[in-house]
Amino acid sequence: MSAIKLFPSHDAIPFIEQVRLQRPLIHCITNDVVQNFTANVLLAIGASPAMVVAEQEVEDFVAVASSLLINIGTIDSQSAKRMLLAAAKAKQTQTPWVLDPVAVGAALKYRTEIAQQLLTFSPSVIRGNASEILALSGQQSSSKGPDGLDSTDSALNAAKLLAEKYRTIVAITGEIDYVTDGKQIYSIVGGDIALTRVTGTGCSLSAMVAAFIATSKDRLAATASACFMMKKVGELANKQSGLGTFAMAIIDQLSLFNQNH
Amino acid sequence: MSAIKLFPSHDAIPFIEQVRLQRPLIHCITNDVVQNFTANVLLAIGASPAMVVAEQEVEDFVAVASSLLINIGTIDSQSAKRMLLAAAKAKQTQTPWVLDPVAVGAALKYRTEIAQQLLTFSPSVIRGNASEILALSGQQSSSKGPDGLDSTDSALNAAKLLAEKYRTIVAITGEIDYVTDGKQIYSIVGGDIALTRVTGTGCSLSAMVAAFIATSKDRLAATASACFMMKKVGELANKQSGLGTFAMAIIDQLSLFNQNH
Amino acid sequence: MSAIKLFPSHDAIPFIEQVRLQRPLIHCITNDVVQNFTANVLLAIGASPAMVVAEQEVEDFVAVASSLLINIGTIDSQSAKRMLLAAAKAKQTQTPWVLDPVAVGAALKYRTEIAQQLLTFSPSVIRGNASEILALSGQQSSSKGPDGLDSTDSALNAAKLLAEKYRTIVAITGEIDYVTDGKQIYSIVGGDIALTRVTGTGCSLSAMVAAFIATSKDRLAATASACFMMKKVGELANKQSGLGTFAMAIIDQLSLFNQNH
Repeated sequence: MSAIKLFPSHDAIPFIEQVRLQRPLIHCITNDVVQNFTANVLLAIGASPAMVVAEQEVEDFVAVASSLLINIGTIDSQSAKRMLLAAAKAKQTQTPWVLDPVAVGAALKYRTEIAQQLLTFSPSVIRGNASEILALSGQQSSSKGPDGLDSTDSALNAAKLLAEKYRTIVAITGEIDYVTDGKQIYSIVGGDIALTRVTGTGCSLSAMVAAFIATSKDRLAATASACFMMKKVGELANKQSGLGTFAMAIIDQLSLFNQNH
Repeated sequence: MSAIKLFPSHDAIPFIEQVRLQRPLIHCITNDVVQNFTANVLLAIGASPAMVVAEQEVEDFVAVASSLLINIGTIDSQSAKRMLLAAAKAKQTQTPWVLDPVAVGAALKYRTEIAQQLLTFSPSVIRGNASEILALSGQQSSSKGPDGLDSTDSALNAAKLLAEKYRTIVAITGEIDYVTDGKQIYSIVGGDIALTRVTGTGCSLSAMVAAFIATSKDRLAATASACFMMKKVGELANKQSGLGTFAMAIIDQLSLFNQNH
Repeated sequence: MSAIKLFPSHDAIPFIEQVRLQRPLIHCITNDVVQNFTANVLLAIGASPAMVVAEQEVEDFVAVASSLLINIGTIDSQSAKRMLLAAAKAKQTQTPWVLDPVAVGAALKYRTEIAQQLLTFSPSVIRGNASEILALSGQQSSSKGPDGLDSTDSALNAAKLLAEKYRTIVAITGEIDYVTDGKQIYSIVGGDIALTRVTGTGCSLSAMVAAFIATSKDRLAATASACFMMKKVGELANKQSGLGTFAMAIIDQLSLFNQNH
């Protein structure tokens, strides 16, 4: 069993700076609930979001984008088709891409099947909560919907197996985040429980991971850096005024993030 | 004619607490404009939102969800099919469900027809503005779009007839809210005109009703409690700084809501 | 070559007031990222937004709406069909309509083709960034996605040609905005770079233009007035607290906008 190493927060700084410098173009095929929040999160960290979804356009756009995000939150037959086309193209053009397998599990067989198909197109990173990572690796999970009920510790082994099997990086996020390539494991602590009470924080973290891996070759550390940034922002954002202010403050803090953290 | 009874605001407290305690899983099939706001409203009151829309998934998910919301705001042929599948399943599994008949009326015949079909699947609650309730009961209304132009008083009789005919609860919201099962009528006063100038307050109130009826058997009082909570929040939320701040403050106040109100 | 005239800001006031007085009903067929923001922007300036998209409903609704907005940001085959139906109907019923040709260009051929088809239905106004206006007029642009990379100066000639060819008004927005009917050219200066770092400011400006031309016959000045209002709001909105607060403050300032500016 590999040792878990606490990700050194100062290591995140150059990754954060690279996104701002390079302004990567992130092709997002994501769910209907979080499109606006995701676009604003990407703009706040200095990336350029582009939600391009037409069957006629996704392949061409994957070819010009810096990276691709696929999030299956509100999947249906049509979006499934687009996701599969985009993922296949990304594999072919070696465009880095992130899979966010929202709410996969026993209650939702269709998306779980599509997620398994998407896995065959070699995602660069998979980011999910513990229930999703457990379900994706074929184990039992406790959740029925998008909100996770399992601890990230309980999914760590599943994450490692998944990372090895698909030669990818798996990030499980929750009370403690773990990021692994099947060999090394980084843990990221901190954050705030309020992050689970605003919709789209996980989904937009996946988009941030897409931006971070678009601008660096060290994908393990890039993914951990994105996780660190979101956790830190969750700590910095004002929680006293309620969840509306908190959601807005996440975007604020991402846009103001500096090296002193 | 039944007497109108002012809903006693302290009666709302146990309903509000039950949502927080039980954290119901709310299956939302709603319109594209308010998905994010609705999810954040549900999270703010302590519920767990899940926007599941695929034809392949809606029936399975209705069976595991605590309740279902169907909002026809941006309906098209595909979403209509999903709504009908979900409503039929909800009737079969006796999953409580809320119908929000956005913008039904003479100008929009397609949705009015689908709404009539949805009615046959026994919604637990129908929540709309006066124009929508009038149109749904076959009477003439003054609105062309989603913003209501009729007074809730003018739709009270239509609400009662609708409630009796479909053995359901009807909530008409506006300057004064009325909630009726065809026999009893609760009125809820207060609120603020600014609530009509932020998109999604009505739609997310329907989602709140879904959460409230998922956690209580007294659906009439549960529905009135949700209406009370939204009106109170409209009063508490800061209006001086403009409508952007006000929209955010609605979520704030829902998340901070306490027994002193 | 026609002279460029700085748009006199006090000329905007009656246009802004007319929208508040007449409360036009704006039929929006827009992209999935900005639906909520667009609806709140329209409500904030006093208009009534209605997102009606079903193939079965768009034509009937164009006939009752005060004006129509078509934004191709997240276009696919189905929405393309709806847009073409709505635009054809608008031409027939002489309903004023605005085309926002998001991200047209060499990288995205499908939408560029649909945009060309939409042009044949005589939009009242075309609003885009410089890259989009260049691409729409058949010239080379530098952008791959929705974020423009060309200066508005570089697209001024393309705007004039486009306006003449389609007998329409073209607004190019960016560091300096230009509004032209092919003969007269207004420039609008000011604004803030932060406007480019929040998603939907351009898209909702197009919606504002739809509201302004719905309530005035002087479409050139009405379009320039909408551009002025957005630029001014960008100056007034708080930027110090970060981009989340800034996005909210745009809605705030639109709703509080008064004659003193």
